[in-house]
Amino acid sequence: MADPVKYVYDFADGDRGMVALLGGKGANLAEMVGVLGEDRVPPGFTITTEACVAWMRLGREPDGLERQVPEAIARLEQRAGRKLGDPDDPLLISARSGARESMPGMLDTVLNLGINDRTVGGLARRSGSERFAWDSRRRFAQMFGNVVAGIPGELYENELGAVKSSAGVEFDNELGVAELRRLVEAFEALYREQTGTPLPSDPVEQLEMTIRAVFDSWKGPRAVEYRRINGIPDDWGTAVNVQQMVFGNLGSDSGSGVAFSRDEMTGAPKPSGDFLFDAQGEDVVSGVRNTLDLDQLAEPLPEVHRDLLGILATLEAHFGDMQDVEFTIEEGRLYILQTRAAKRPARAAVRFAVDAVSEGLLRRPQALTTIEAAKLDQLLHPSFDPDHPFGALARGVAASPGAAKGEAVFSAEAAVEAAHEGRDVILVRRFTEADDVAGFNAARGILTSEGGKASHAALVARGMGRPCVSGAAEVEVDAKKRLMRVGDTVIREGELIAIDGSTGEITNEDVPLVEAVIDEYFETVLEWADEIRHLEVRANADTPDDAARSRSLGAEGVGLCRTEHMFMSADRLPKVRAVIVSAEEQDRRRRLEALLPLQQGDFEGILREMEGLPVTVRLLDPPLHEFLPPSRSLEAELERVRGEDPDRVEETERMIERVERLSEVNPMLGTRGCRLGILYPEIYEMQVRAMMRAARAVTDSKAERPKLEVMIPLVNYERELEIIRDRVVSVAHEEGMEVGKDFRVGTMVELPRACMAAGLIAAQADFFSFGTNDLTQSALGLSRDDAEGHILSVYLDQRIVDRSPFESLDAPGVGALIEMAVARGRAVRPDLKLGVCGEHGGDPDSIEFFNQIGLDYVSCSPFRVPVARLAAANAVTRAEAAAAMTPWAADAGAHTPA
Amino acid sequence: MADPVKYVYDFADGDRGMVALLGGKGANLAEMVGVLGEDRVPPGFTITTEACVAWMRLGREPDGLERQVPEAIARLEQRAGRKLGDPDDPLLISARSGARESMPGMLDTVLNLGINDRTVGGLARRSGSERFAWDSRRRFAQMFGNVVAGIPGELYENELGAVKSSAGVEFDNELGVAELRRLVEAFEALYREQTGTPLPSDPVEQLEMTIRAVFDSWKGPRAVEYRRINGIPDDWGTAVNVQQMVFGNLGSDSGSGVAFSRDEMTGAPKPSGDFLFDAQGEDVVSGVRNTLDLDQLAEPLPEVHRDLLGILATLEAHFGDMQDVEFTIEEGRLYILQTRAAKRPARAAVRFAVDAVSEGLLRRPQALTTIEAAKLDQLLHPSFDPDHPFGALARGVAASPGAAKGEAVFSAEAAVEAAHEGRDVILVRRFTEADDVAGFNAARGILTSEGGKASHAALVARGMGRPCVSGAAEVEVDAKKRLMRVGDTVIREGELIAIDGSTGEITNEDVPLVEAVIDEYFETVLEWADEIRHLEVRANADTPDDAARSRSLGAEGVGLCRTEHMFMSADRLPKVRAVIVSAEEQDRRRRLEALLPLQQGDFEGILREMEGLPVTVRLLDPPLHEFLPPSRSLEAELERVRGEDPDRVEETERMIERVERLSEVNPMLGTRGCRLGILYPEIYEMQVRAMMRAARAVTDSKAERPKLEVMIPLVNYERELEIIRDRVVSVAHEEGMEVGKDFRVGTMVELPRACMAAGLIAAQADFFSFGTNDLTQSALGLSRDDAEGHILSVYLDQRIVDRSPFESLDAPGVGALIEMAVARGRAVRPDLKLGVCGEHGGDPDSIEFFNQIGLDYVSCSPFRVPVARLAAANAVTRAEAAAAMTPWAADAGAHTPA
Repeated sequence: MADPVKYVYDFADGDRGMVALLGGKGANLAEMVGVLGEDRVPPGFTITTEACVAWMRLGREPDGLERQVPEAIARLEQRAGRKLGDPDDPLLISARSGARESMPGMLDTVLNLGINDRTVGGLARRSGSERFAWDSRRRFAQMFGNVVAGIPGELYENELGAVKSSAGVEFDNELGVAELRRLVEAFEALYREQTGTPLPSDPVEQLEMTIRAVFDSWKGPRAVEYRRINGIPDDWGTAVNVQQMVFGNLGSDSGSGVAFSRDEMTGAPKPSGDFLFDAQGEDVVSGVRNTLDLDQLAEPLPEVHRDLLGILATLEAHFGDMQDVEFTIEEGRLYILQTRAAKRPARAAVRFAVDAVSEGLLRRPQALTTIEAAKLDQLLHPSFDPDHPFGALARGVAASPGAAKGEAVFSAEAAVEAAHEGRDVILVRRFTEADDVAGFNAARGILTSEGGKASHAALVARGMGRPCVSGAAEVEVDAKKRLMRVGDTVIREGELIAIDGSTGEITNEDVPLVEAVIDEYFETVLEWADEIRHLEVRANADTPDDAARSRSLGAEGVGLCRTEHMFMSADRLPKVRAVIVSAEEQDRRRRLEALLPLQQGDFEGILREMEGLPVTVRLLDPPLHEFLPPSRSLEAELERVRGEDPDRVEETERMIERVERLSEVNPMLGTRGCRLGILYPEIYEMQVRAMMRAARAVTDSKAERPKLEVMIPLVNYERELEIIRDRVVSVAHEEGMEVGKDFRVGTMVELPRACMAAGLIAAQADFFSFGTNDLTQSALGLSRDDAEGHILSVYLDQRIVDRSPFESLDAPGVGALIEMAVARGRAVRPDLKLGVCGEHGGDPDSIEFFNQIGLDYVSCSPFRVPVARLAAANAVTRAEAAAAMTPWAADAGAHTPA
Repeated sequence: MADPVKYVYDFADGDRGMVALLGGKGANLAEMVGVLGEDRVPPGFTITTEACVAWMRLGREPDGLERQVPEAIARLEQRAGRKLGDPDDPLLISARSGARESMPGMLDTVLNLGINDRTVGGLARRSGSERFAWDSRRRFAQMFGNVVAGIPGELYENELGAVKSSAGVEFDNELGVAELRRLVEAFEALYREQTGTPLPSDPVEQLEMTIRAVFDSWKGPRAVEYRRINGIPDDWGTAVNVQQMVFGNLGSDSGSGVAFSRDEMTGAPKPSGDFLFDAQGEDVVSGVRNTLDLDQLAEPLPEVHRDLLGILATLEAHFGDMQDVEFTIEEGRLYILQTRAAKRPARAAVRFAVDAVSEGLLRRPQALTTIEAAKLDQLLHPSFDPDHPFGALARGVAASPGAAKGEAVFSAEAAVEAAHEGRDVILVRRFTEADDVAGFNAARGILTSEGGKASHAALVARGMGRPCVSGAAEVEVDAKKRLMRVGDTVIREGELIAIDGSTGEITNEDVPLVEAVIDEYFETVLEWADEIRHLEVRANADTPDDAARSRSLGAEGVGLCRTEHMFMSADRLPKVRAVIVSAEEQDRRRRLEALLPLQQGDFEGILREMEGLPVTVRLLDPPLHEFLPPSRSLEAELERVRGEDPDRVEETERMIERVERLSEVNPMLGTRGCRLGILYPEIYEMQVRAMMRAARAVTDSKAERPKLEVMIPLVNYERELEIIRDRVVSVAHEEGMEVGKDFRVGTMVELPRACMAAGLIAAQADFFSFGTNDLTQSALGLSRDDAEGHILSVYLDQRIVDRSPFESLDAPGVGALIEMAVARGRAVRPDLKLGVCGEHGGDPDSIEFFNQIGLDYVSCSPFRVPVARLAAANAVTRAEAAAAMTPWAADAGAHTPA
């Protein structure tokens, strides 16, 4: 028979490389034993995550565990010099969960295991404090009942409150032995009442029940929810750490606390923390008593204070990251119970990275990996003042970062009007459409009750850098009555509303906003990132303003300029509509001439801003009917002009007919992208002419020649590309511009067919830009518009997906298609330039994937450019680490898309 | 320097294996020289298709051709014993195009090259007929001017008519020398007038200009159109065959004709044909004079008649296929100018195949490959009586085969009503929707003015075996006024209309219909096909009737039973709607109970009909709102009940609200397929319960246990499948049925994501069925509903695609995805059963692809089952031939999807 699986490791047998097996807490405990020595870390052992996974699969303890746990206890008893259940000098232990990634508050802990009516006396004698012994017993009864048996915490609090008030005391630590004995009795009665069985007194039974409870808690709703939000796989499981108890509640030379190796809010190089004398850890966390600052330890216990600071520095240096430590002082002796990388706001993370390098603690690449790229976004947008608490009215999807406030308005027109009058407004809609875009520009922020992170509102808002909360299902929008309702609260047009697009919060309170500050640390971090990364970072920019903003944030080009957004502005839309309603080509050509100088102006502005950096312009992409008014509003308009403006009846009727003719059952799968270019060649001709003239104008006036890239969208067949490319080249030629010399022509790869046939298509393309939004949509047969907030929210709940595929690239499907297209395209054309435009170009996990498959660039919305720069650098560092198999690579891989 | 490319082959140097290079005609001429000897085939040479391709690429004659043609002419002169331009005994030659596949009438021919004012006299002397010589010159001037210079044929006809009427004769051959001389003058003047240059008299110049014209004609609009319709690649090019002229117009012992080795209409083993005495080939084809039957050759020229019959038999035996031969008799001597496989109607093809085997001419597999599988369909449906000519009113897409006639009706209700009264009707709609399905059943045929071969109307009609003409753009349907217009013709409800869904023809004449006859030949062919094929052939059948029909046509199971079609019948739709309008799960569950026995009944019927053959039932697939009435009709209904039926106001309002809530921007990419199963588990539960109970009921009463396969549609993620599979298994278990033993669970692979992740998905599936309709739609980002008749028709016109990807599998895109899914799926699960359901399961080219990649079965609509059986057999034979590289394999590969 094969050796049974080893499910239990003593702390002394593990190390930090064993995170997957021992969990983060267990691996760090093991590592700490090595770094700080056995004296600083109370002894114990870890039951592996594999045991948890096997437990979940089998529905029972896996073979071997029943033997390995008692053996580990025996070793622990020997090291501690005490025995579980020993009535004279009992060993008490704790059991804590510890998953691969920290999941604070999500899984459960039981302290003081081993206490019962036979050992409480021994504990009292050894500690010299009967009160301590009974308090420990009281705590055990409470935690065990709550965590293991699931008895509501408030039932315990009620009993505790009753006893405290009858004793006339305010704090738990003022209770005397008699009260504590009464409480233990009450808690044991409560346990019996709720479970039908007595509170177990056998220490081994206590431990076994606790282990099972910890394992089960992995499947508890809070843990599931946390994993869903944080994208942690269900099948990782949790480890259980069993450790000798040390006591911070043995009097005034005892205490417990948490400490950070640096200031946890700012990252400044000064340790910070909170502690309490005569208390156990949970007293510090619970906030019942006001905690003391770390400095306040220096005077009463100077050696402990000095040792703690030294340990913080040692651990930080050893782990190469800012540490968050739990400590206990037992009768003047300092123990470290846990260390982990400190969670910190973006500002602190950035500061730490820069300081760590200048202190020689880390090299630049590693320093950068200590910053979570996605969080950088926080630093670029205003936020609600954290010092000003407020009541949230509702919560939606955090769709575009930043906070904003203003008067609620319920139509794009009202927003534009208010903006003209200089008033700040928030545009509130059920959902937004192309028609609303002018309102986005005019508003400070956007709130919708439908749609998710990839809704029209979210996409446009992110593109424009406007804060947006979308899909706030509790909000009922009544645009006709110009009001919104949340439960009983009614907010009418003109009343104040505030949103935070980084958190999804909505309030009607006047919360102060804090402006974004881009400081030297931030700049330094991005400079270093630029040195390391291979991926070029471009921005999606549709206007000269966007282009300017993206350059100031470090974009190295425009990866996607959507020409249709230029068509949407209030002064142009009528001209665009005039083109679309003409059923005759000649008529359309004539009307397009009016648009040509306008488009040329846009392109000139963008090319000037980009000063010789590449600018990829996408030819018209969306279905034409997106530019037309919805049929309902047209019917109303027809009614109106019939009465008021008879001359316009015919025009309106023609518009209605055209809208009907252009309507499609599934517009996303209809006449759009290059299909428009095949059906209406004159539109693309105008656009190409405009951009060629713009490029010439800019060339004439600038030293840096513009790098224009013409992008043909939604290609399936090489022939589509060939036909349109030929026309582009010929129009450009008429304007004195030569392909290859003055501009390049490529395609947006955004259909699975194009990925499979990439070899054929590459023969006609100078570059591929993967349009991952549409590629995700078509590969999954799932509409962004329809799925987010509806199907996808159910899929997230049921753990069918860990993250929305529109947010983070679906590697096994969409990613595999891209990888195939890259291989097939490059096989035909080794110099093919390969990039990504689409939401995923700004998502760190997706960027890691794009780096891995060797793309040349990513393009994202301007405000995501810093995120992408850092993520691209970290992707390189992680890939190199993975290749070199350095110890810290194990952690680095955790975020790779599965 | 490398040897120049050989662009010219003498007939004696080629053979039939060189079709790609010499074209069909050239290769067969070469082969004939080998089989019949040089005496039967006038000598000549072939200029290769490569020369044509090089010509198109370079825009000029490729190097070497300028030398090789004169050399070949010299050899030809030697063999013929005459010289071009010899004034005493001139050689005349013909030049004919000949592509790889026969393209009748599409490319051009010039006869009598070499004639001019110096040679006409020699020709007269040699032939002893001045009239013949001038007639030849007249013909040359006419053909050359028409074909090479593109002068409209009617200008020549006008001159000819004028001369004939002034001479007072009816037929060309009654013209005397004087009139012919006048005509030649007139034609030469016409040429000068139209081209500005004189008609060339130098024979070599005549030939060179002709060769160029033939090459250019490959790009002519007629040729392009023919290739488009027949899916022939543009880059094949055409060969040019240059051959010594022989003359059928040298008097009464001369003649020209065409002959078939068997009866060309029935395939009966008796040669047939048409010929004329004293005529050239084009006289026979033009139909100006009434031709004679082949038998009529026997008396005047018995030896020639006997030789011809012998040659027909020899050629048929040699080529292994029914032959279509062009012959000329020159002064009693028989020449064969061309032989090719005879085009023939399905009936003749089937008869020939069976006879050829019984005569020992062919082995069964090869005999079957002489039948074009797609044509078998013709034999299963009634057709317009071919003996009854009629005037077509309009033409649409041949969307579902067979002819039908009846009163025009313009709504499904009217169709149902008429059917109740026993009247035959044709349902005429702009397009059809789910609501119209009851009307399909009631109507004899369906006519729509929009949509193509993959429109809803076409799909449903084919599924139900109803003839359908779709996308008849000239037909204007006014459903409100209950009439249709074609130009000035108005057809009102109740007036007669007839359609032929095999040809797309529409008429308002009372054309007699001829019923389908399935004869012994047909049965024999299919039996042989069954022996050869590897692919299993199943049918898509939604009702017991469908199932019965498909079995009678040889289906070996049901590959796709769409449960939603069961929901559409008039008695069930209200029950289905009742389910959908309930927003509460418990409510829905209760209402579903009413549907359960009905679904069970359907399944029982189908399982009984299939007697132990596999039946794959797909769980509910379409978006729920397809079952709901359109919002407009609901608004009208609300108006109505407000007045008439106040009790129903609330119900109607609820329905309106629900319809709005369920409406999606892109329903094809929305809440459908297994997403319904995730959102509304109770629906699938009901369906699974119904099928399990049905299977048990059938098991109890039958010897053959049913083979039930539960199919989960539209899967992307393995977790979707896992969740639903678990529920299926558990409901089945409640009904006493065990997975693996009593039924299997698989998935429809119809999304690109599922193909890429097929390895993961296979772990949860007993089988994959590729849903190629949806897979095409999602891989190409192209909606069937929106594309056919619109974008796709433009794409076909512009040669972006050769055939609609919804008709014939897009091999480089969709095919590549399927191939990948097959490889990934089988790698994980070697016993995975793999099939196709979808339109492509009945398309021969697609079937060849499916055979090639090793699928287990195809499933198609019942009437396509015979087509699929034959196509599957021919796929095997062709694959084996390709592997063995037998000579006839070269031809066989021509239809493989590119």
